[in-house]
Amino acid sequence: MPEYKAPLRDMRFVMDEVFDFAAGYEAFGLDEVSPDLVGAILEEGAKFAGEVLAPLNRTGDEEGCHIDNGVVTTPKGFKEAYQQYVDNGWGSMTGPTEYGGQGLPASLGLVINEMVASANYAWSMYPGLSHGCAAAIRAHGTQEQKDLYLSKLTPGTWTGTMCLTEPHCGTDLGLIKTRAVPQADGSYKITGTKIFISCGEHDMAENIVHLVLAKLPDAPAGTKGISLFIVPKFLPDANGESGERNSLVCGSIEHKMGIKASATCVMNFDDATGFLIGDINKGLNCMFTMMNHARLGTGMQGLCHGEASYQSAVTYAKDRLQMRSLSGPAAPEKPADPIIVHPDVRRMLLTMKAFNEGNRALAYYTAQLLDKAHYSKDEAERADAESQLAFLTPICKAFMTETGLEATILGQQVFGGHGYIREWGQEQQVRDCRIAGIYEGTNGIQALDLLGRKVLGSQGKLLMAFTKQVHKFCQANEGHATLGGYVKQLNGLNAQWGELTTKIGMKAMQNREEVGAASMDFLMFSGYVTLAFFWLKMAVAAQQQLDAGSTEAAFYEAKLVTQEFYFKRLLPRASAHKEALEAGADSLMKLSAEQF
Amino acid sequence: MPEYKAPLRDMRFVMDEVFDFAAGYEAFGLDEVSPDLVGAILEEGAKFAGEVLAPLNRTGDEEGCHIDNGVVTTPKGFKEAYQQYVDNGWGSMTGPTEYGGQGLPASLGLVINEMVASANYAWSMYPGLSHGCAAAIRAHGTQEQKDLYLSKLTPGTWTGTMCLTEPHCGTDLGLIKTRAVPQADGSYKITGTKIFISCGEHDMAENIVHLVLAKLPDAPAGTKGISLFIVPKFLPDANGESGERNSLVCGSIEHKMGIKASATCVMNFDDATGFLIGDINKGLNCMFTMMNHARLGTGMQGLCHGEASYQSAVTYAKDRLQMRSLSGPAAPEKPADPIIVHPDVRRMLLTMKAFNEGNRALAYYTAQLLDKAHYSKDEAERADAESQLAFLTPICKAFMTETGLEATILGQQVFGGHGYIREWGQEQQVRDCRIAGIYEGTNGIQALDLLGRKVLGSQGKLLMAFTKQVHKFCQANEGHATLGGYVKQLNGLNAQWGELTTKIGMKAMQNREEVGAASMDFLMFSGYVTLAFFWLKMAVAAQQQLDAGSTEAAFYEAKLVTQEFYFKRLLPRASAHKEALEAGADSLMKLSAEQF
Repeated sequence: MPEYKAPLRDMRFVMDEVFDFAAGYEAFGLDEVSPDLVGAILEEGAKFAGEVLAPLNRTGDEEGCHIDNGVVTTPKGFKEAYQQYVDNGWGSMTGPTEYGGQGLPASLGLVINEMVASANYAWSMYPGLSHGCAAAIRAHGTQEQKDLYLSKLTPGTWTGTMCLTEPHCGTDLGLIKTRAVPQADGSYKITGTKIFISCGEHDMAENIVHLVLAKLPDAPAGTKGISLFIVPKFLPDANGESGERNSLVCGSIEHKMGIKASATCVMNFDDATGFLIGDINKGLNCMFTMMNHARLGTGMQGLCHGEASYQSAVTYAKDRLQMRSLSGPAAPEKPADPIIVHPDVRRMLLTMKAFNEGNRALAYYTAQLLDKAHYSKDEAERADAESQLAFLTPICKAFMTETGLEATILGQQVFGGHGYIREWGQEQQVRDCRIAGIYEGTNGIQALDLLGRKVLGSQGKLLMAFTKQVHKFCQANEGHATLGGYVKQLNGLNAQWGELTTKIGMKAMQNREEVGAASMDFLMFSGYVTLAFFWLKMAVAAQQQLDAGSTEAAFYEAKLVTQEFYFKRLLPRASAHKEALEAGADSLMKLSAEQF
Repeated sequence: MPEYKAPLRDMRFVMDEVFDFAAGYEAFGLDEVSPDLVGAILEEGAKFAGEVLAPLNRTGDEEGCHIDNGVVTTPKGFKEAYQQYVDNGWGSMTGPTEYGGQGLPASLGLVINEMVASANYAWSMYPGLSHGCAAAIRAHGTQEQKDLYLSKLTPGTWTGTMCLTEPHCGTDLGLIKTRAVPQADGSYKITGTKIFISCGEHDMAENIVHLVLAKLPDAPAGTKGISLFIVPKFLPDANGESGERNSLVCGSIEHKMGIKASATCVMNFDDATGFLIGDINKGLNCMFTMMNHARLGTGMQGLCHGEASYQSAVTYAKDRLQMRSLSGPAAPEKPADPIIVHPDVRRMLLTMKAFNEGNRALAYYTAQLLDKAHYSKDEAERADAESQLAFLTPICKAFMTETGLEATILGQQVFGGHGYIREWGQEQQVRDCRIAGIYEGTNGIQALDLLGRKVLGSQGKLLMAFTKQVHKFCQANEGHATLGGYVKQLNGLNAQWGELTTKIGMKAMQNREEVGAASMDFLMFSGYVTLAFFWLKMAVAAQQQLDAGSTEAAFYEAKLVTQEFYFKRLLPRASAHKEALEAGADSLMKLSAEQF
């Protein structure tokens, strides 16, 4: 089984040639983020991911986490790898400089995160959730809270979690039962049970900072009565170091389909000391800071498993000899041809390639938006970046994980029977990837968020801001010598996107169920069109290089062929989603519960 | 976690009201297969599946199989359940009466097999493979071989396997290295290693009969030099009982993604004694008897996991309270509504329901063809049934397993985070189901078989025989008062099916890669149209009952709604597959291996 290698050339293509990250850094006055520095970070990140984390991926799955009397042990090597990650400053890359961070832009952090998470997704969750926790404290904490916790979370000395779900509620957080009772000293006593807490307990860091949703005794019912609390495993002492043990404990860890090296904990809080963060009853707002962060990260999970699976599948398809090419023997000296000669094997590999590289372009585009939202001096640009992020986040989360799962399933299929055997690693990619469509808001919830809140909730404004951009691109390229036909195809779909939305909006005024009935197909339609846009952007960039006589013709030609494949072989699915959602809610709502 | 219950009403609907199994039994002179007998068998089968096998499904997965010095132990309870299966005559149902079988028709066997395999797929593989082995011996063995082995395999006293795959070849059996050296007594010495041998070694029966593909020393190269051998674990003694141990051993068992309770063995044959079955160098022909049997069985696997997953998902969706219906509270007395009120949850359940019930109709139709091919006194009818089976087998195998996997993934999704946790059982359905698209010829190979061998290889004859039937049905129902619109839609797709095939055939004359480039999308297109045909047959039958004033209106209305859902929400995918395959081989074949 080949281990993951960061696809640096593909990454650089998107960073440099499609979106020009460097120009952004310059515009934002990030002079220290020089091309040399970026190059060095990418090279070192690739090494760390490939040499330290990738070798722990399968052993981590085999060994899993163990719990003994509330103490969770992570698989062999995980702790040491984490220490190396902290020591070498990977954890603090994008953290604020005032707390020991390096202040590097989020876009660069996301690229490094792609490497880390592709090499070993389960491992990457430990630092990944910490980043979300730190972001929430940075956005909503008091100065004291920031000083205390960010100085530990930023370098990675402590890690963090988010504790939302309870046994009887996940999506519907208004139902939570965890209680927070105010104390005389301004703190709170937190009591309740949280489940599915990723990295809720482990042996990798000296302390764990839980962000916990709970209700005050007199809180209003539903989501308007939820507050957020910082509940550390060890209470900070006077020097801000881990002090007294708080009364919370990991009751058990779940036995799961995959990401077995990531401890998924049941956390029992029993009069644990907590500190309010943000305003009373505004906990959900604070939590959304974490959740948006986590949703983009979860979207990346689709790409990460898809890429790792693709790399193994390509290697296998070049090695495995089986049958002859119908066009005549490709390796006449061998007993059979490598299976990469067969068109149906190529269909599977190209589907993976098209989704992975398209998803990477989508992800890096949002990464650049994160930079803009943070650094731009122009308020309108910042606001535009925030709006685009709001619009693209559910697409990233759901479309990238749906297509990522399809990619890993195909990567397993390329291996035939060997794909089903644990030793080859492909089945782990499928098992690990499967969770991405479920957690951080199921993909169905993302679809409702996209269509209900973001698109219809903004009276179409967020969608139009994006389709306008696509339209502009199409206008600019309508006369393209080789890609003009595809530009026309994209422009047509882009127009349909708006029309569809208007139609659903009209129907929803008659029947509110129409939104939920259309949402998942709308999300998938949106994803296919969005990826078509980014694929065409990549194709235009590749054609430019070819026209300029690039010495890397094979690389750029592959981009053009993959774009062609995407448009001809995958994009037709957009129409199937359109037709399905246009059918409306009727056939969905007719059956009584008993008729199922 | 609710355990599987055979959906008897749905099964009877297809058996009695859509295809009229009883009329077939009468026509074939199977007087003993009375409605009373059928009813009793179904009731008892449902009990055995639900009460004996289903409770062993999850424990079997947790425990798995173990090997110690060549001895394989199956999970607790498996052996006892097998004994009960044998004692109660389930194994011998369809076996020949001269060898202790009950001579019941294959159609009834398939229905019982659906129950058994839905309750516990891994367990069902032990008897399942035996049936294939017995079928091959019955078709190709000498009288002596039949007397010897069928008298043990038919009641299930011994079990059987098929040993094809070797480490370096699965699809490409021409490459096998296992050798068969003729001995003076007419037997052969078999030496070689076979892998992925399902149920190759276990503790459930007193002997195991391996059917092994091997090459004689002077055999021609490739598939024309393969012979088939009976290689029993214990050589039969003079009385036909298990005698001396043969020199073959299970070297190891695989660690797999799923079907963990089914022992997947590496079998080492070391000068093992084997007996030629069928003619020298005609082994593949003999093996195809087993493989066609196994392919239909594997297609059923898609339905079985889909159905088991659906039952759990519906129960969960009625129990789990989360959010309010947008149309107003459905359960105002509870803290939230059951999630079955939400349109997107219904979309998932209906997708499962539509695939499961459509696939069941397809499967039962082929079951009736099995009866026709075996019992019909009319040679033309027998030949027609054989042709239709040849045509439908790859569709059953691949389409039912692709859509079955989609169904199990949706059934997991309905559970949210709980779907990812082992204890709920839904993730096991996904892991177990995943193998069905891979083994017994990957789905890509089925697609080549359908388009290359069956459709184009018969100059379209096999396809036309089926599309003619669909066309006739459409003509007969074009004026249907309520379903006329769907009839027109089906008729249009049916016409496209033929046109598409002609186009591919023309292109393939220019470029042989066009077949492989089109095959998988062609298979999926074929599957969607085939299911549309069967759904419409079901809808017509349901409407008839409603028109006649049935007292089961809710049941029949659910059929009509599911048919509507299938046509409006799932069938549009057929067009996406059509568009994709019409794009041809170009974008698939352009890249060199290095460009991947």
